[in-house]
Amino acid sequence: MAIIAIVGAGVMGTAITFPVADNGHEVRLVGTHLDDDIILSCLERRIHPRLRRSIHERVQPFYHTDIPTAVAGADVVLLGVNSRGVHWVAEAVGPYLEPGQIVMMITKGLESSPDGRLQILPDVIRENLPAAIRDQVHYAAVGGPSIAGELAARRHTSVVFVSREVEVAERLRSLFSTPYYHIWTSTDIIGVEVCVAMKNPYALAVGLAAGVLERQSPDVANAHMHNYAAAIFAQGLAETAILVEKLGGGRETVFSLPGAGDLYVTTQGGRNSRMGRLLGKGMAYSDAVEEMPGETIEGVDAVVSVMPAVEAMIQRGEIAPDALPLLRELHRIVTRNAQIEFDFNSFFSRLPFNPPPAGQ
Amino acid sequence: MAIIAIVGAGVMGTAITFPVADNGHEVRLVGTHLDDDIILSCLERRIHPRLRRSIHERVQPFYHTDIPTAVAGADVVLLGVNSRGVHWVAEAVGPYLEPGQIVMMITKGLESSPDGRLQILPDVIRENLPAAIRDQVHYAAVGGPSIAGELAARRHTSVVFVSREVEVAERLRSLFSTPYYHIWTSTDIIGVEVCVAMKNPYALAVGLAAGVLERQSPDVANAHMHNYAAAIFAQGLAETAILVEKLGGGRETVFSLPGAGDLYVTTQGGRNSRMGRLLGKGMAYSDAVEEMPGETIEGVDAVVSVMPAVEAMIQRGEIAPDALPLLRELHRIVTRNAQIEFDFNSFFSRLPFNPPPAGQ
Repeated sequence: MAIIAIVGAGVMGTAITFPVADNGHEVRLVGTHLDDDIILSCLERRIHPRLRRSIHERVQPFYHTDIPTAVAGADVVLLGVNSRGVHWVAEAVGPYLEPGQIVMMITKGLESSPDGRLQILPDVIRENLPAAIRDQVHYAAVGGPSIAGELAARRHTSVVFVSREVEVAERLRSLFSTPYYHIWTSTDIIGVEVCVAMKNPYALAVGLAAGVLERQSPDVANAHMHNYAAAIFAQGLAETAILVEKLGGGRETVFSLPGAGDLYVTTQGGRNSRMGRLLGKGMAYSDAVEEMPGETIEGVDAVVSVMPAVEAMIQRGEIAPDALPLLRELHRIVTRNAQIEFDFNSFFSRLPFNPPPAGQ
Repeated sequence: MAIIAIVGAGVMGTAITFPVADNGHEVRLVGTHLDDDIILSCLERRIHPRLRRSIHERVQPFYHTDIPTAVAGADVVLLGVNSRGVHWVAEAVGPYLEPGQIVMMITKGLESSPDGRLQILPDVIRENLPAAIRDQVHYAAVGGPSIAGELAARRHTSVVFVSREVEVAERLRSLFSTPYYHIWTSTDIIGVEVCVAMKNPYALAVGLAAGVLERQSPDVANAHMHNYAAAIFAQGLAETAILVEKLGGGRETVFSLPGAGDLYVTTQGGRNSRMGRLLGKGMAYSDAVEEMPGETIEGVDAVVSVMPAVEAMIQRGEIAPDALPLLRELHRIVTRNAQIEFDFNSFFSRLPFNPPPAGQ
């Protein structure tokens, strides 16, 4: 029996308690300072209000003030905050980490470092931990298509556990694997982490098509715009592959569960798709944000946090200026309240196809 | 001005008249012997009953008895029959082809040859043309996400035109390219043709999830099964890549518009998805067919026509016996009226991930 401490009691942090608790492990679910209402509900009623279901009988809820207790003696400290909470959680948890513990990220994101590099979150966490512990713990992460509510319902879910240390990923697999939670392991932490971060902006981009359709005049045969969405889907994958390769990750990761699989699932609903639809309808970003009050749109955060490093990579000649037209257009839309002006012909310029002539 | 003759007046054959007619070319739309009602409607009312819209004013409809007239002097002879009509169309059109014409396939499929090889349809067509003309014409094909009704509505559509002769693909692009029809060119005809054929069975497989969900007891929080579908989506791409590589095509084709993009669009609706849902609900294939009378399910046809060559490739040691578990399961379901028994852990065995241990 192992002890798993999860910091961040959102939907994903709570959903992943199901397989590990089903396996008989001790599970400590710790809310952040923003999760007090969730923890109260879990303590008083054993109900997670956002997952809208009972929590597992083996899960012990904790308030953030109990982080030291919850982390003590844990085999795995799983970080389930959202991307804005990464620095907070490193500070909050760091002083209590113990040598040999596995720090496992389910937070999705990428950061631009001050010197213009793209950093994956496990590396951001590491840099922000106290120097004395930073090299005494192990790092791991999860990628792949995993809608939290489905995992919590014990629906078949297939994911990749990743660590630079293969035995760490294997150990985690032995703790989390169940008949409904299927786990592959990989050492390509760069590939997985870039995929999990970039699927959000690119799913938002796919969602634009639904909004663009709504503002067209109705078609006599009720034609949709799936062809439009599919080209964006393919370009999103292509741009993800460019970023992964530039950072030293593997393409196979992009074109399987962590990339294609997760992008697919993210286009099937959720906040990024809804934001995409609003922007596609022609709403300015600043107005669209007001339509979704209090919701973190990870796809927007990722575009904003990734772009400075991308610009620096272009400056340094590491990426061609025209390699990421979809990302650039998303950035323009959300930072300048701009209307969409896609140039489909700018897509796929890094693939072994001859692109359409300019101006067509 | 060029002359484009299209044989097969189904939805795709008719949809592709729009860009080429918009470009001012002469367009001859020829029904097969199964399309007489469509051609009658096009002649009398200028309406295509299955596209549910008016045909382009420049399109001239012809009955199949007028094939010699329609093909005479054409620059491009576009074959738009369904996969069951490939041998018929080679016989019907072959005697009237003229040296220098481009034979362009929009039919989707693959065939097992008697000696156990997988053949792409442009090569099947070539073999079935009269010996005197077979090497006097050029061959090309189209891949990528292109729902016919959307192309006919002039919605943005991005595709790949492919020919072993790059200048043939470029010539076709110059004829078909419009501000809404975006065309990349490629010489990877193997990659494109395997992708266009295999997206149908794999989209059917993704559709199974919707049916499996329906036969579950309702979940307290209304959880869906998108994670289930997404794993199948990713495995479908992985198996497509295996087939493409074994036949000498390029992976980049699989992981962009022709593979990932087209699989995405095909999962968004249509006959293959509907058949998948029925089978996922637990209906035997023979009963599901009766629910969709008169409809050709290209995904089923592809599984049945591909499997003999796949078995031969396994016999010859060209493919590992466990490399294509999803295709094998589809084959079992549709040829033996079997219930789905997915082993998710059998997926992704050819990727650089460590697979789950057997029996988990």
